[in-house]
Amino acid sequence: MKGGEAPASGGAERRMKSYLKELECPKCHRKYDAAKVNNLCECGGPLIAKYDLGALRREFDPATWSSRPNDLWRYWELLPLLSRDSVVTLGEGGTPVLRMPRMGKAYGLRELFLKDEGINPTGTFKCRGAAVGVSKARELGVKVVAMPTAGNAGAAWAAYAARAGLRLTVAMPEDAPRVTQAECLAYGADTWLVKGLISDAGKVVHQRAVKEGWFEVATLKEPYRIEGKKTMGFEIWEAFEGRLPAAIIYPTGGGVGLIGMWKAFNELKEAGFLSGPLPKMVAVQAAGCAPIVRAFEEGKDKAEFFEGAHTVAAGIRVPSAIGDFLVLDAIRSSGGLALSVTDAEILETWKQVARLEGMLICPEGAAAVRAARVIREMELVGPDDPVLVLNTGAGAKYTELLGEKARRIEDSAS
Amino acid sequence: MKGGEAPASGGAERRMKSYLKELECPKCHRKYDAAKVNNLCECGGPLIAKYDLGALRREFDPATWSSRPNDLWRYWELLPLLSRDSVVTLGEGGTPVLRMPRMGKAYGLRELFLKDEGINPTGTFKCRGAAVGVSKARELGVKVVAMPTAGNAGAAWAAYAARAGLRLTVAMPEDAPRVTQAECLAYGADTWLVKGLISDAGKVVHQRAVKEGWFEVATLKEPYRIEGKKTMGFEIWEAFEGRLPAAIIYPTGGGVGLIGMWKAFNELKEAGFLSGPLPKMVAVQAAGCAPIVRAFEEGKDKAEFFEGAHTVAAGIRVPSAIGDFLVLDAIRSSGGLALSVTDAEILETWKQVARLEGMLICPEGAAAVRAARVIREMELVGPDDPVLVLNTGAGAKYTELLGEKARRIEDSAS
Repeated sequence: MKGGEAPASGGAERRMKSYLKELECPKCHRKYDAAKVNNLCECGGPLIAKYDLGALRREFDPATWSSRPNDLWRYWELLPLLSRDSVVTLGEGGTPVLRMPRMGKAYGLRELFLKDEGINPTGTFKCRGAAVGVSKARELGVKVVAMPTAGNAGAAWAAYAARAGLRLTVAMPEDAPRVTQAECLAYGADTWLVKGLISDAGKVVHQRAVKEGWFEVATLKEPYRIEGKKTMGFEIWEAFEGRLPAAIIYPTGGGVGLIGMWKAFNELKEAGFLSGPLPKMVAVQAAGCAPIVRAFEEGKDKAEFFEGAHTVAAGIRVPSAIGDFLVLDAIRSSGGLALSVTDAEILETWKQVARLEGMLICPEGAAAVRAARVIREMELVGPDDPVLVLNTGAGAKYTELLGEKARRIEDSAS
Repeated sequence: MKGGEAPASGGAERRMKSYLKELECPKCHRKYDAAKVNNLCECGGPLIAKYDLGALRREFDPATWSSRPNDLWRYWELLPLLSRDSVVTLGEGGTPVLRMPRMGKAYGLRELFLKDEGINPTGTFKCRGAAVGVSKARELGVKVVAMPTAGNAGAAWAAYAARAGLRLTVAMPEDAPRVTQAECLAYGADTWLVKGLISDAGKVVHQRAVKEGWFEVATLKEPYRIEGKKTMGFEIWEAFEGRLPAAIIYPTGGGVGLIGMWKAFNELKEAGFLSGPLPKMVAVQAAGCAPIVRAFEEGKDKAEFFEGAHTVAAGIRVPSAIGDFLVLDAIRSSGGLALSVTDAEILETWKQVARLEGMLICPEGAAAVRAARVIREMELVGPDDPVLVLNTGAGAKYTELLGEKARRIEDSAS
């Protein structure tokens, strides 16, 4: 059954236990108490949740996860909440993995899969981070949160904040997708439009948050959004029966989904639930905003600010990401890479996928699909290797970009 | 796990067997061979799928359903497909049931639930009918299909037709929601805009279909869309642990979802899987288009065409429905009723639900939520009775109707 809050959901799970241990900075390895409200490390690094994986290995049978309701909360042992009563849910996670036979054939990939994160409460994978982030903020007693967004994260956090009774201020570029602006407003978030990019919105939010005492929940500025997003990794592991795809392709803005999946795979491995090789992690960016790709190609450990960022895929128009070094580390450790595709390729692929596979994905997802062709051409993967693409959101939010018009009946020859 | 097409999905289910027996007209009780392509009965009535429920009762343990992947295909025994290879899927069904504590409090209902059908591949419950309808059409060898739509059914059928490789012609009112027009076009459906309502679109499609030999898949003009939609009923039964809500409220255009759920409950009962009372079925319409409500109030068995139909909720702007007599029979047999709400009430409730519950539902869903207040005031249900509302689609498709605008940061006092 799907999770949610039906009478049949969750009753038997009251005895579940989180193995959360502490928070740690991956830059300076300083440790923090997870029972307190935390933002960044003193050194400026993001704080990452650590679990007692040795105890999990001894005490827990991962087959239990499959027997629970089908949402992201089934992975409770590796989530940071202490009490089931803290959960703020709209039925997030548990998304399907689908085959792309026609695109796969065109690209020379016999096993091309797509995980459709559009099938989530606010239509994007951002629900995962928002569900866990808002739930944990509420558990820790936070009342007011604030964040910048390219659009969809704001919509998701606005939904969960409304559901939790938290106050949210969200700032977004003035040209963020109109639907996402409208969503934030509908959920009652205090919604600000800022001239510039998400980085400019971030500055505005930071200033206000310091002044007003709001809890900042920007990407990786609090430790739990990534914990929600990593559940994509657990679901992939489950959907592939523990044998992971040869490569996972992820459209990369802030990169938390990619870092999160990589964290998930390594947690499963350390807990002894996963053997065999991990997937090659592939970060895809738009040619007009490719800081991670540039750093990857130049052999650098972190990325520089990408000036003049522009792309039709608003969700990956992120010129600077606090987790850049973690993305670069994950793709290098996994034998993957970072690559960029053009807006023309994104638009072409987007339309192809709708017509050939019956999937109206988002532009960011289209960038990731296109990258499957590139990694096959580069021979990063062979023709029989399973390749999984993440579609991060529902395309119906962006149909104004498609530019096609239906004919009136009187216009046609009969 | 979610269904879909991951390696872990469906392998063990190859031995599943459908108990489909034949088709029957509920008007004249003539029977038809389900192995053939069928539209309406000779008498003009819709054909309804019948299953061997006695054999199912003897041979099948319904606990099996809960152990299968979480999509609508888990109810295989009561679905009409003969072969698993016929399935055309995008991961439909398996939607969550959520609590509405704040709206429930406002309405005097301690147990108010919402089943969120927006969390579906094309963002609406129409995916259920399209998945089963397209799959069965393909299994029967159909190549070209045609239908009228108010918007969302067209988008869903366009997606599944593209995925199945079927050709689809869809006709919709010229003022159908723009997102749904764009979706049909994106999936490659031959998309026509018609002056007037869905009933006018239906006439156009019928003329063309007869001339061109297309298979008509309008509401209840083929027997299998309802089979997909009835799975909402199975999921409700599962989510409530076999004890059904006291009332189920459904926004009613063509009414197939309501008829389908009622069919599902009666199948479960006849198969011995369900004891106890069935829910009161409540059909909600807009005051500007309420043919079923009028017929219900006048004690009639079928509805008359509703002249001058208009409402902000495009999905229930259906002035005449072929299944009207089945809707009226279901609500009367169940002790339920039909009622209407105004557009002003729909818009007000829509905004309330977003702010208070963190759910951006669709206008049709908002009509159904509002009806919960009405049936409580009428004392159709008591304060402790569980009441379930169907939200039929994602609100993000309709944000242009919300009419709120975000502030630019320079407009604000700092």
